[in-house]
Amino acid sequence: MRVDAVRNRERILEAAEAVFSVEGVSAPIDRVAERAEIGVGTVYRHFPTKEDLFEAIVMTRLEGLLALAQSEASAESPGTALFSYLQEFSRQASAKHDLFDAMGAAGIEFKARCAEKIGEMKERLGLLLTRAQDSGVVRPDTSVDELIGLVIGTSQAAVQAGLDENARQRMVGIVCNGIRVPDTTEP
Amino acid sequence: MRVDAVRNRERILEAAEAVFSVEGVSAPIDRVAERAEIGVGTVYRHFPTKEDLFEAIVMTRLEGLLALAQSEASAESPGTALFSYLQEFSRQASAKHDLFDAMGAAGIEFKARCAEKIGEMKERLGLLLTRAQDSGVVRPDTSVDELIGLVIGTSQAAVQAGLDENARQRMVGIVCNGIRVPDTTEP
Repeated sequence: MRVDAVRNRERILEAAEAVFSVEGVSAPIDRVAERAEIGVGTVYRHFPTKEDLFEAIVMTRLEGLLALAQSEASAESPGTALFSYLQEFSRQASAKHDLFDAMGAAGIEFKARCAEKIGEMKERLGLLLTRAQDSGVVRPDTSVDELIGLVIGTSQAAVQAGLDENARQRMVGIVCNGIRVPDTTEP
Repeated sequence: MRVDAVRNRERILEAAEAVFSVEGVSAPIDRVAERAEIGVGTVYRHFPTKEDLFEAIVMTRLEGLLALAQSEASAESPGTALFSYLQEFSRQASAKHDLFDAMGAAGIEFKARCAEKIGEMKERLGLLLTRAQDSGVVRPDTSVDELIGLVIGTSQAAVQAGLDENARQRMVGIVCNGIRVPDTTEP
């Protein structure tokens, strides 16, 4: 892709995320073009259907989370790195909830690619968890499956109960606190 | 109701819970009658439809949870009382998940009665929480809505991820640990 095409794509995705999160997933593509200040024809050239747009948003976010997990894996304070990663993971999980729902009927190919990324994420989250456990900050009896369940479940429950962003953050904070070994501090 | 009718009703409900949890909500009424060792006609007299049976199971459990909250409200150790209540609450929420799903199309009347009980439960759980906070065992910044979200979300996530009963218990234990004030002990 040419540089300006790449830039356009990014602008469209950014605008689409903002539009869908404020106006809901039923907002028309025209609103996305308007917000991105890009002709609607260009938007359709990049994303022929709204599902393509949803898919690109979800994939971009998953890739962002994967990159974040990678960079946090060499952080100086493994406990803090894990806790801040869990907050970001939860934030994305609750913010992209509508998109995932709207993509219920999405293609098998997308689901397979998604499952692959989620598998990778679990692996990298496992790495962050192990580092935090090895450094003595997190309880050794916590498994990655249970941790994912706690964070995803909490994020979904916060959305379903109509709780706000602060409540969600506090709830994930309680989970982090719950796996922490008392009286440990990090640099 | 006559004493033996009450006893029959209880035996049917007990058998129905066991049958539905092992064989799923599609198990036929005949299996319930068989397990309860009660004639199928008697079962139908008590519960004309399977939905009546689901409803009675859910309501009985909700009432059980309400009674438990009431008795725990005068327990000597408010922290321990809250934590053991949350475990039981979560156990019921995950065990009765299928029934709630199967009752998706249930009558408005039932839903209203259910909502009423759930409102009562929230009130009583709030009381247990306040007592535990007043005694200094639980963090004062935890709200009852967030606590319910944490426990229900965790229970649902455990079911969805196919985690077992031990994992669910550990996950709720993490939530309890997360709201606990460090270095407090109770009689």
